[in-house]
Amino acid sequence: MYSFNSDYSEGACDAILQAMVDTNRKQSVGYGLDEECDKARALIREQLQSDTCDIHFLVGGTQCNQVVISSALRPYEAVIAAKSGHINVHETGAIEASGHKVLVADSEKGKVLPQGIRAVMNEHVDEHMVKPAMVYISNATEIGTVYTKAELKALRDVCDEYGLLLYMDGARLPMALVANDSDLELADLAKYFDVCYLGGTKCGALFGEAVVIFNDALKQNFRFSIKQQGAMLAKGRLLGLQFSVLFEENRYLDLADHAVKMAQKLQEGMEQEGISFFVKTTTNQIFPIFEQKLLEQMAQKFQFQLWEKLDDKRSAVRFVTSWACEEQAVDECLAWLKHYLRA
Amino acid sequence: MYSFNSDYSEGACDAILQAMVDTNRKQSVGYGLDEECDKARALIREQLQSDTCDIHFLVGGTQCNQVVISSALRPYEAVIAAKSGHINVHETGAIEASGHKVLVADSEKGKVLPQGIRAVMNEHVDEHMVKPAMVYISNATEIGTVYTKAELKALRDVCDEYGLLLYMDGARLPMALVANDSDLELADLAKYFDVCYLGGTKCGALFGEAVVIFNDALKQNFRFSIKQQGAMLAKGRLLGLQFSVLFEENRYLDLADHAVKMAQKLQEGMEQEGISFFVKTTTNQIFPIFEQKLLEQMAQKFQFQLWEKLDDKRSAVRFVTSWACEEQAVDECLAWLKHYLRA
Amino acid sequence: MYSFNSDYSEGACDAILQAMVDTNRKQSVGYGLDEECDKARALIREQLQSDTCDIHFLVGGTQCNQVVISSALRPYEAVIAAKSGHINVHETGAIEASGHKVLVADSEKGKVLPQGIRAVMNEHVDEHMVKPAMVYISNATEIGTVYTKAELKALRDVCDEYGLLLYMDGARLPMALVANDSDLELADLAKYFDVCYLGGTKCGALFGEAVVIFNDALKQNFRFSIKQQGAMLAKGRLLGLQFSVLFEENRYLDLADHAVKMAQKLQEGMEQEGISFFVKTTTNQIFPIFEQKLLEQMAQKFQFQLWEKLDDKRSAVRFVTSWACEEQAVDECLAWLKHYLRA
Amino acid sequence: MYSFNSDYSEGACDAILQAMVDTNRKQSVGYGLDEECDKARALIREQLQSDTCDIHFLVGGTQCNQVVISSALRPYEAVIAAKSGHINVHETGAIEASGHKVLVADSEKGKVLPQGIRAVMNEHVDEHMVKPAMVYISNATEIGTVYTKAELKALRDVCDEYGLLLYMDGARLPMALVANDSDLELADLAKYFDVCYLGGTKCGALFGEAVVIFNDALKQNFRFSIKQQGAMLAKGRLLGLQFSVLFEENRYLDLADHAVKMAQKLQEGMEQEGISFFVKTTTNQIFPIFEQKLLEQMAQKFQFQLWEKLDDKRSAVRFVTSWACEEQAVDECLAWLKHYLRA
Repeated sequence: MYSFNSDYSEGACDAILQAMVDTNRKQSVGYGLDEECDKARALIREQLQSDTCDIHFLVGGTQCNQVVISSALRPYEAVIAAKSGHINVHETGAIEASGHKVLVADSEKGKVLPQGIRAVMNEHVDEHMVKPAMVYISNATEIGTVYTKAELKALRDVCDEYGLLLYMDGARLPMALVANDSDLELADLAKYFDVCYLGGTKCGALFGEAVVIFNDALKQNFRFSIKQQGAMLAKGRLLGLQFSVLFEENRYLDLADHAVKMAQKLQEGMEQEGISFFVKTTTNQIFPIFEQKLLEQMAQKFQFQLWEKLDDKRSAVRFVTSWACEEQAVDECLAWLKHYLRA
Repeated sequence: MYSFNSDYSEGACDAILQAMVDTNRKQSVGYGLDEECDKARALIREQLQSDTCDIHFLVGGTQCNQVVISSALRPYEAVIAAKSGHINVHETGAIEASGHKVLVADSEKGKVLPQGIRAVMNEHVDEHMVKPAMVYISNATEIGTVYTKAELKALRDVCDEYGLLLYMDGARLPMALVANDSDLELADLAKYFDVCYLGGTKCGALFGEAVVIFNDALKQNFRFSIKQQGAMLAKGRLLGLQFSVLFEENRYLDLADHAVKMAQKLQEGMEQEGISFFVKTTTNQIFPIFEQKLLEQMAQKFQFQLWEKLDDKRSAVRFVTSWACEEQAVDECLAWLKHYLRA
Repeated sequence: MYSFNSDYSEGACDAILQAMVDTNRKQSVGYGLDEECDKARALIREQLQSDTCDIHFLVGGTQCNQVVISSALRPYEAVIAAKSGHINVHETGAIEASGHKVLVADSEKGKVLPQGIRAVMNEHVDEHMVKPAMVYISNATEIGTVYTKAELKALRDVCDEYGLLLYMDGARLPMALVANDSDLELADLAKYFDVCYLGGTKCGALFGEAVVIFNDALKQNFRFSIKQQGAMLAKGRLLGLQFSVLFEENRYLDLADHAVKMAQKLQEGMEQEGISFFVKTTTNQIFPIFEQKLLEQMAQKFQFQLWEKLDDKRSAVRFVTSWACEEQAVDECLAWLKHYLRA
Repeated sequence: MYSFNSDYSEGACDAILQAMVDTNRKQSVGYGLDEECDKARALIREQLQSDTCDIHFLVGGTQCNQVVISSALRPYEAVIAAKSGHINVHETGAIEASGHKVLVADSEKGKVLPQGIRAVMNEHVDEHMVKPAMVYISNATEIGTVYTKAELKALRDVCDEYGLLLYMDGARLPMALVANDSDLELADLAKYFDVCYLGGTKCGALFGEAVVIFNDALKQNFRFSIKQQGAMLAKGRLLGLQFSVLFEENRYLDLADHAVKMAQKLQEGMEQEGISFFVKTTTNQIFPIFEQKLLEQMAQKFQFQLWEKLDDKRSAVRFVTSWACEEQAVDECLAWLKHYLRA
């Protein structure tokens, strides 16, 4: 049964797998100090148009968030996020486990609002409360929406006003970059963020994320933090190799583009059949609202995820597509739906 | 200028001070293993009508919350609290610093609602999220309200249903016990709570809180937790001595009763003058709403605390009374208000 | 230049790489709940002759140590290790970062001594000191030595006497199992250990370690601990797949056997040339002592690691071999040495 | 039975108790922001001859160590101490609980050696190990010895060489200052230390220690750290009041002087009777070596502490005196010993 459950259901894109096979017996030093990692760093820096950023490769997203945030904050400092922020909900308290409170700011469609940050800052005024020190955003967000450059500029401004760091969780950044309502490019990141990570796991790699540190103050001794949190891969070369492949020949964005196209084809097709949506997105996650009977029938044909029960009769569900998504599966899904609804 | 700022503005009740003077040169073993602490434990157990509870004396409330909660929870477990819960707002992230997330449940007038707990439990279903393991309540709450026995029973039931521990922060417990809308007694605590603490700092002691552990599973090695968090007082005798004095001759409740009477006299007096309230309370904190000009004028005569700006013209303020509150100050405050409003 | 620097210089054994290629586009659920992981668990349980152990796949060794130890201990509990124990030296304080002290017990050739454990237990008697709760050993140790079954039995007995958990870091376990002075087998592990991990990274996998929990008390909610520490791989299938391949056709021990044979050939060859050793080993790490000039000359031909400067003229160095070690490189190394020494 | 068990067996010196009685009903703001605390800060700064140091009053010594060290270090940084250092042995892993490893450096008579620090620094060279960032010393040490200015200068120099912070635990600092082999004065502290604390609990106060921060880099947001660790006393005035009394009329050193005189009288008297010592000291702790029978007989007359069993027949024991020690008890102890030994 074809699965639209997640964007990490398959292995790696062919080019990555081939590169692994080709270099398998090559000896290299460990822990990310090898030539492949250096090559990947150079390729990424070029596309970021940033000569001075530090780049570290980690295995997974929760790991990135935990290492970056705990490395940047003093013990009594807190990080601000949307209620739906991955660090606030789906990391089993990893941030709190490293000692820091996650403060929730008002958000809209999964996006942190500048006035939400202001409100948090106005409430936290003395040493009886935690000291907010960083804003965390996901882009694309956990519900598939994207930030425009104007929105990012507004966040950057409020962060500057209050002396806050701005951090982007880019697990699905490439999908945001290719979204048709996004004007953001890789070369813009240095303008807005102190630190971010570029997701690989969900965009063609077997695993791997690239932490990019723009702010000099956050660079020092970062490798100590990586190692201390068990996040330093012995055969670090594997991470560099994958990111080298992703950042050659526009592969990173091309893979994301396919993922987004598939999801959008699904979304448009469903909409044409009269399906409404929990939230309309422009990336590789879509959130149709299904009547209970439709949900049950389709679940026998395709895998997808229950997102939220809206009432006794209707639920929002989630379909996710990836670089590996087969267009034929998308077509079959829409055909099935068409047939079901017109039956 | 007389201060209604807090219930920890003065020293200790006379009986405590006298006992300190009388026993000052007496030698004793340290760290809470002395005779005075044993005597205090016996007195408290008697009034709790619990032979088997463990009792530990700590210096302050944040310390109690941090030691109790971090001692009870496994690393991935979380504690549920009201948005206004002291651990959620006013302890500089002490709970998160020990690794645990504070989850906010719906509350009403500062009191956690059973359905709020249910909602949190229904949202936390797998290992990608923290595992809620304890409910934290304050009684009296941070805004001066109290729980009835029926409300506590409802919380206990929902905790039993989900396998949650129930913990009461009793920094102002005696004020709750003497409140005219409370049917709770010391002898009831063992029925509802796994663990709680009885506040001393705000009820006649120089400092000190008594942690009471009813649930056997939470008793083991608790002194290790106390010591590890820097919360084991060298001259522990001082804590036992103070609680001995407080739990003799009904002193604990009598002191609270005076505090509550003074606040209630203020509240009634203000109400008679047409003042409205942010929340009406029955304990030793009151929250009148003042017009800006009244606020400024009164602030030149009496100290009190700005609680929340409601709009451009009106603010909720907080007056707190204690065992040491001088009735003459209350009278003068009301007289001044009367004069001001009628001028 | 051929490197004897580490046993993680190359990629994966051919069978693993082939399996990855073959299954690359197969969809699977994430986070280690897939069929490949289940298959690997079954294969490992069979060879451990343990039906009831829990098995979790993690990416790296420091991660395993951190998750296992922090999951097993209460906050005030400590773990006992040899001075040279990986957790004590080479994990950037990962155990302390999760709140636990590492206590050093007397050891011999990298192996914890039962009397060393006794001494630690006799020194830790009350709540002013941490409470030792677990013994950590590495097998093979960090300096290439192995524990006999009699030695493990003696450790188990002293652990039972004091109520301590016994944990084995098996990053190089297969090399210990095939060592000619080891009588330990996979089927023995359940007798000695509460929990251990079987290393994959250093024995043919791209990455991956298998945590095996024998003690029921340590099993509960372990996946929460994995996730909280950022150690839950999205495409968990990759770990199961690799361990499936390793535990088929005796591959795990065969790969280790090659690694050990290569190191032992080096050690014997060097000994025949009159080289003495910092410690004689029976596994895949050897520690010859080189005069400064020899060290410098050989370093121009082969990569190896400086272990410890012994005096102005002599240093202990480390050569490590792996499943991927080319026998030709070993032969060339010995030939070069022979020529050098006789020149 | 008279106790020489500790220097925290009694309450407070008379002047402190009187000041508490005199000011008991005075209202003040909480949390150490009151006038008494400011007065105490001014008095201490004067004697330290430091206008710019920050001073914070905490309740106990473990608390000071935990707040100071965790506030000063980054997560991957470690603190160096003597094996006998209080933080290494007798704080139930409080430092590790806040995430930091305690590294043991070679010491002599409880005093950290400069070459011990060098050795630790030479061993910690990369990100696979913790990064040493601070040296912790106790003065007087845990076994009653003191540092000379030359020794402190040597430590300061090695700290400067390696970029390490130097921190002094001064739980028994006044006893060190009055020791006849000490040339250190309060006015010297700013020269040697980045931060230290001046002990009150063991020198005439009911409780309380004064943290003094000389290094500007450690000053920022220190009150957040205090609060987060549950170490901010509500009635903070009590701490300021006690330190005001101690730092008036040379009381702090006079009280220490009495304590030291009593211990030294005991030590000299015992020596005259032919008793040998585990270590000879010049402060308020002494460590005679008793034959088993003497130990048992004297234990029926006086309380003292078993320090270390030396062999089957002899043990080192500890006698501690304080500001409150009655000279008559010292005389009786010596008289009893004389009688016993000559019987």
